[in-house]
Amino acid sequence: MIVIMEIGATEQQTQDVINAIHEAGLRSFVNPGVERKVIACLGVVDAEKAIFRDRFASMPGVERVELISEPYKLASRHAHPDPTIVKVGGTLPGATPAEIGGTQLAMIAGPCSVESREQTIETALAVKAAGANLLRGGAFKPRSSPYSFQGLGHRGLEILAEAREVTGLPVVTEVMEPQDVRTVSGYADMLQIGARNMQNYPLLKRAGKSDLPLLLKRGPGCKVRDLLMACEYVMLEGNRSVVLCERGITTFEDSTRYTSDINAVPVIKHFSHLPVIFDPSHATGDSRYVAALAKAAIAAGADGLMIEVHPRPQEALSDGPQALVPDRFKTLMGELHLLSAALGRKMPS
Amino acid sequence: MIVIMEIGATEQQTQDVINAIHEAGLRSFVNPGVERKVIACLGVVDAEKAIFRDRFASMPGVERVELISEPYKLASRHAHPDPTIVKVGGTLPGATPAEIGGTQLAMIAGPCSVESREQTIETALAVKAAGANLLRGGAFKPRSSPYSFQGLGHRGLEILAEAREVTGLPVVTEVMEPQDVRTVSGYADMLQIGARNMQNYPLLKRAGKSDLPLLLKRGPGCKVRDLLMACEYVMLEGNRSVVLCERGITTFEDSTRYTSDINAVPVIKHFSHLPVIFDPSHATGDSRYVAALAKAAIAAGADGLMIEVHPRPQEALSDGPQALVPDRFKTLMGELHLLSAALGRKMPS
Amino acid sequence: MIVIMEIGATEQQTQDVINAIHEAGLRSFVNPGVERKVIACLGVVDAEKAIFRDRFASMPGVERVELISEPYKLASRHAHPDPTIVKVGGTLPGATPAEIGGTQLAMIAGPCSVESREQTIETALAVKAAGANLLRGGAFKPRSSPYSFQGLGHRGLEILAEAREVTGLPVVTEVMEPQDVRTVSGYADMLQIGARNMQNYPLLKRAGKSDLPLLLKRGPGCKVRDLLMACEYVMLEGNRSVVLCERGITTFEDSTRYTSDINAVPVIKHFSHLPVIFDPSHATGDSRYVAALAKAAIAAGADGLMIEVHPRPQEALSDGPQALVPDRFKTLMGELHLLSAALGRKMPS
Amino acid sequence: MIVIMEIGATEQQTQDVINAIHEAGLRSFVNPGVERKVIACLGVVDAEKAIFRDRFASMPGVERVELISEPYKLASRHAHPDPTIVKVGGTLPGATPAEIGGTQLAMIAGPCSVESREQTIETALAVKAAGANLLRGGAFKPRSSPYSFQGLGHRGLEILAEAREVTGLPVVTEVMEPQDVRTVSGYADMLQIGARNMQNYPLLKRAGKSDLPLLLKRGPGCKVRDLLMACEYVMLEGNRSVVLCERGITTFEDSTRYTSDINAVPVIKHFSHLPVIFDPSHATGDSRYVAALAKAAIAAGADGLMIEVHPRPQEALSDGPQALVPDRFKTLMGELHLLSAALGRKMPS
Repeated sequence: MIVIMEIGATEQQTQDVINAIHEAGLRSFVNPGVERKVIACLGVVDAEKAIFRDRFASMPGVERVELISEPYKLASRHAHPDPTIVKVGGTLPGATPAEIGGTQLAMIAGPCSVESREQTIETALAVKAAGANLLRGGAFKPRSSPYSFQGLGHRGLEILAEAREVTGLPVVTEVMEPQDVRTVSGYADMLQIGARNMQNYPLLKRAGKSDLPLLLKRGPGCKVRDLLMACEYVMLEGNRSVVLCERGITTFEDSTRYTSDINAVPVIKHFSHLPVIFDPSHATGDSRYVAALAKAAIAAGADGLMIEVHPRPQEALSDGPQALVPDRFKTLMGELHLLSAALGRKMPS
Repeated sequence: MIVIMEIGATEQQTQDVINAIHEAGLRSFVNPGVERKVIACLGVVDAEKAIFRDRFASMPGVERVELISEPYKLASRHAHPDPTIVKVGGTLPGATPAEIGGTQLAMIAGPCSVESREQTIETALAVKAAGANLLRGGAFKPRSSPYSFQGLGHRGLEILAEAREVTGLPVVTEVMEPQDVRTVSGYADMLQIGARNMQNYPLLKRAGKSDLPLLLKRGPGCKVRDLLMACEYVMLEGNRSVVLCERGITTFEDSTRYTSDINAVPVIKHFSHLPVIFDPSHATGDSRYVAALAKAAIAAGADGLMIEVHPRPQEALSDGPQALVPDRFKTLMGELHLLSAALGRKMPS
Repeated sequence: MIVIMEIGATEQQTQDVINAIHEAGLRSFVNPGVERKVIACLGVVDAEKAIFRDRFASMPGVERVELISEPYKLASRHAHPDPTIVKVGGTLPGATPAEIGGTQLAMIAGPCSVESREQTIETALAVKAAGANLLRGGAFKPRSSPYSFQGLGHRGLEILAEAREVTGLPVVTEVMEPQDVRTVSGYADMLQIGARNMQNYPLLKRAGKSDLPLLLKRGPGCKVRDLLMACEYVMLEGNRSVVLCERGITTFEDSTRYTSDINAVPVIKHFSHLPVIFDPSHATGDSRYVAALAKAAIAAGADGLMIEVHPRPQEALSDGPQALVPDRFKTLMGELHLLSAALGRKMPS
Repeated sequence: MIVIMEIGATEQQTQDVINAIHEAGLRSFVNPGVERKVIACLGVVDAEKAIFRDRFASMPGVERVELISEPYKLASRHAHPDPTIVKVGGTLPGATPAEIGGTQLAMIAGPCSVESREQTIETALAVKAAGANLLRGGAFKPRSSPYSFQGLGHRGLEILAEAREVTGLPVVTEVMEPQDVRTVSGYADMLQIGARNMQNYPLLKRAGKSDLPLLLKRGPGCKVRDLLMACEYVMLEGNRSVVLCERGITTFEDSTRYTSDINAVPVIKHFSHLPVIFDPSHATGDSRYVAALAKAAIAAGADGLMIEVHPRPQEALSDGPQALVPDRFKTLMGELHLLSAALGRKMPS
């Protein structure tokens, strides 16, 4: 249930509604819209919907009360008509803060895995020079096979922190279990929950208690609706800075590693106020197709990209076939500058 | 097997190779490249590959001979490195010819079904005014249920021909069975084989004997590789003017009718020389998402779009929910003008 | 709309209802149930549903009138509560008629393609000896690639007819285009429409006008609902002897050629009265798994199996990897005898 | 790499090989086969494969050394040709131990969620009476929506323990995070890792250190190969008592909640020595189809079933539509008795 305040409702009126919600034994979240406030009201059982709707609807300053039928509420555009802009960086020293959402496009790039100090710094400098404004890199790597490279772990985090200092790029990195959130937060500017963990609810809840913004990747076998419900687990814990990421789904087509679900970009934007980025590296699994899909996603309305770059893909310890070399990434960034101008979006300066 | 002639090989040398191929009991197709000629050589059995490779490779003017491992050859880029440009219109009077492929973008628009003379002419004029350069419209409609509207048939073809005269737009329309190819060819500028018939081989072969260019739509449960093999059936009969169309595949995601396989655009371009267009109307099934996917496909490198437009979608006899109203289509065409300029592609003038 | 007659309604009462349906400009089909008659009433538009329901419901002998919301009616179990039993063979000389449906199981076996007289007769004798009661074999072969073996065509039909004479097994073979129905009917006891042609509506309609029973295979990218609607095209033309065949669907899983949709067996039986058989050869694409899936399908309630058998799979011109050798088929038939007894079903004697 | 000992190799010879493996810096696991010992050798890098193969192959008592190309080794049938039989129960008091694998079938039944003491005990008694030999029930419930019932948690475990005491049935219950493994192990006889957590590697590793047998459910978007690699994470930590569970995959078909991948049963058995059970409740999502699929899975070779039973499905707090009522479950168990006898398998006594 959401309570939509009138344009011009006073702060006291809003507070009175919130108090009434709490007195009814319910929880509230206020979405501070530009024009008007919208209060999400959580915990209403079916039997009491009519009662509460009438009670809140009659309070001063309330325009109307709406029941939301989607199984996610805080992530729903109904509850938050304006697009959310997520800020990344600024807490840990050394990073130039970035924004994801609104007219601004986010360009997240870097290696799949942090393999060494040299490879990471070299890649970070290259993507920075090419125009990226966030650095990605995996220290903890969930791999399908236990015999594959599992990441450098804590040492990887230290390397990422050094790369931030050298480049000023805020760092996005994956966290794989609840108890690691605190540690990773000492090095990262944005947490990432990977595709395999999209429905790892203890992890989602723990990330929901974090102060850091979260990048939540869609599981390749999960519907858009499942992604939004997973996101709701995070937001219910208080963390409202969530960016969603489409990275390809499993289908029968086998000429690419996954099938890019570009439909999901406008679909998520229709149902949710949260920013959506696209990962063409995983969604194709093939560096030959990354640029085409990167451009497609931006044209479809994505708020940014997450692209894997490696100076020597043939030597990469993970996902080499889908990594762009720095030169190819630089060319793509040039193409995206022209494209974004035509679309009224802004690339990082 | 393909025989790649040297740059500067004489016409006589090429003819000698062709004669040698025929004397060996094989068939040949010559791809007239800009720089050099490439001769596809069909009918070679495995056991004789080495023999023929050596025989042809030693002939004057031959640079090298390559075995092609794909199960399609005429559709393969190996056999035809330059992109093919397909010409539509010009045989029947009244139409302004259009080109699909190269730098030129094709904008095919019109109603899903021809429902009446008024609806068709009104729509044709509207899409022409908005900048489309080809008219689509179904007279013979393959419908999942026998209780759904099945199209106006022959009367629909007459209406389409009138719409061409009024607007000058070449007409693309579907043909559902071999015996209808001749009739439809009396009214259409381009034949369409629909998704349900992608593996209807008698129909493909009959279309392969036609002089009209063919639009071949991908079956929603078929791989890209299946599409290229289906196309090979057409090309083997002699018709080399084939345009492929991605229109969405079946997946588990149910927030849209199909899942747009935008990956298929660069994949097909990598493996084939044929033009590829995209149909965002079927690929999303939802008019709210058509514009986003139209832009995505062009950004991914598609050579054109096929979009359903209806003046009153709520009254449409088929696929109303995915039809754009003319005004929305016009806005999209404006956006595509900006986008195509940024991408170095040309919209129809 | 279906009109359900009372138990004990007279023949005259039934005829009166049929006449009333025709006078209203509608079409009728009578399903001769064991206990009572059910009349399907076709052509009712939404606006007139209430009118006709009331009109027919008040006639003598009518128990009730039901609106059917499925987009298929003749194939629906609502319109025909008793299971349909399809008879195969008996028109052309030499075959021992078989029944598909009811408690009786049908065992259709034979080569994927008719490759030669020897291979076909040898296989036919072997499957007959092992207990099959119908012979399959392809004379016209729809193949994904035009470079694959396309079948012996008319000569293949002659070989199949000879195999029938030798073994007494009725012959099931595929027909690929409407104009071939008459020819194939001169040799076959049951027509097959293959997976690629499941939505080839002209072919479905032509088969609907045939006197021969039809085996309709599900397209690998088509829903159960699509299959039932395709079947409706056949039944609307008058042919009510349709057997449906599940043969695997396209999914992301790649350890088998297709994914067997065994769920479809009880689902189809829930929604339709038509017999359902299962083809484990295509559904797995791997002879190692054929027996397991054959048993699974029978346990799930399938009315029979269609299995590819080849005396020398490694020499097969099509689909060798999924063919059982005669000995393996014989063992499977023995296992199925035990299984069917436990399930209350009858194997062919 | 696996080292296959000769039949009749001495214990000392086996120990010498193990020592040589360890001296080379590698790890070993011994699979105690009935006829001969097979030693899995882990940690070999590509460059040294030939060296180690030759070194070990020349040792006394070694028959041959094989490289295994699958990305899983301990789960592979190459390394362990005999089928594994997993024992459940016997550590905590009150349960009658059960075996999964071999000729014995396991029948795991119970409610989706533990909702109350009464509902759980009532259901446990009913499934016991009907012939089940293991009790399932969720105390920690991973739910797609945070607004759905999340399970009774610790209280649910207590209820399950009481149900074991009352019925003697060993308890299988889900664990959702590594830190809960110890707690759940105080109440459960077998841990379950659910479909959503199939690639939650920290959880898999923690379960791999447990003494309890593990039921690992396939993620609905994951390939069989992914399942076996996930299983390898568990086994590498030392826990070799893993039972795999197929529970339906995501496909385009929407007449059922998931599509049962029955092919996976013989496929897993071909590639792995571990027992495989099937969950028809999730795989169909519809109680009308559960019995058909239960029988299909057993006929395909599954080693058991996991079935949801609820005395009043319409009141269930989770997954009511797929729950069988006790009477229907009892009927199914009777049918399975007949079926298993025909297949040479043994139902629980």
